[in-house]
Amino acid sequence: MRFRTSQLRLYLVTDRALSLGRDLEWVVGEAVKGGVSMVQLREKDMDTRGFIDLGSRLLRLLRPLGVPLIINDRVDVALAVDADGVHIGQSDMPYETARRLLGPDKIIGLSVENMDELRQAESLDVDYVAVSPVYSTATKTDTAAPFGLDGLREAVRLTRHPVVAIGGMNENTAPAVFAAGADGIAVVSAICSAPDPAAASAKLLSSL
Amino acid sequence: MRFRTSQLRLYLVTDRALSLGRDLEWVVGEAVKGGVSMVQLREKDMDTRGFIDLGSRLLRLLRPLGVPLIINDRVDVALAVDADGVHIGQSDMPYETARRLLGPDKIIGLSVENMDELRQAESLDVDYVAVSPVYSTATKTDTAAPFGLDGLREAVRLTRHPVVAIGGMNENTAPAVFAAGADGIAVVSAICSAPDPAAASAKLLSSL
Repeated sequence: MRFRTSQLRLYLVTDRALSLGRDLEWVVGEAVKGGVSMVQLREKDMDTRGFIDLGSRLLRLLRPLGVPLIINDRVDVALAVDADGVHIGQSDMPYETARRLLGPDKIIGLSVENMDELRQAESLDVDYVAVSPVYSTATKTDTAAPFGLDGLREAVRLTRHPVVAIGGMNENTAPAVFAAGADGIAVVSAICSAPDPAAASAKLLSSL
Repeated sequence: MRFRTSQLRLYLVTDRALSLGRDLEWVVGEAVKGGVSMVQLREKDMDTRGFIDLGSRLLRLLRPLGVPLIINDRVDVALAVDADGVHIGQSDMPYETARRLLGPDKIIGLSVENMDELRQAESLDVDYVAVSPVYSTATKTDTAAPFGLDGLREAVRLTRHPVVAIGGMNENTAPAVFAAGADGIAVVSAICSAPDPAAASAKLLSSL
């Protein structure tokens, strides 16, 4: 799959714990019906076999729809299921190693939590950077100080990479985030915890 | 590195939590001085970057000595550091996938917790099976019913693969385990928690 920046527009990061006990495959399916353009499967407490099984199921759902599936952190899972790429943070596998293992055609996104990390990412051929967090959020409590809108604007100005904004994204915050130059918003709870993930996704998309 | 069954003889499985606060690289270095012939790096709560860094340090120590370094579960870490292989359990990556990702020359060991799993392993070209546990142990509390010596003897008779015995291995239990036909013993606390890991390893080896 050829990665296009436009696929970052409405980017779902999964969280089973926030999915109200519903099957994650169903949540993702609904989200995509509502317009989600990219999916990152994030699992921190699942054994490898379960992670691979879930990734395979999501890939069978998403690939026919042309929606990229990205695996958080685990390059082994991405390789095992032939996902479209990985999303890595600063304490995950170094970018160069991940690129060597995945090859030139897979998507690799990198989280940056401050301007220093953003500057370091300029020398890497990542496919996008996730500016994290733009706003503080209850979903992730171990995050760095928020960039805020001004920080996001500066990040967009500084970087040559496409930018997805994460942290506190919802239909109220999204318009200003796009106005600040982000190519997309990464959403967790606003979709995973929505009573109707399809409607929530469509509403987010219409707010952009 | 060409894998030889004799390398299973005294097989160390690392556990930082049981290493009495000492640096794991030091513990492994001492263990190898005492005669450990193979090392499995097992980390369940470390981020990927730290796991890779630690694996790289151990590999620099072990490769010049001809002692294989095996990574528990994480094929991505094994690929990143160019370890000698992986050890997988029944809830880790399926053997066929791990073999495809690692290629024909890396070592792949598989834990079996009962005779059914052992029989299923007969159709796989694993390099060895770990019969787990032979005795119950305080190190791992989530294990299946112990094989016991009779079960181990039957496992050795049934399988075409080299067998390493794990669970309750120390200088008192090891002789009977070898007499039952095991090719090696896998040891955690008897080395990691020993005041002198080199002496403990040498003592284990001399008991065989």
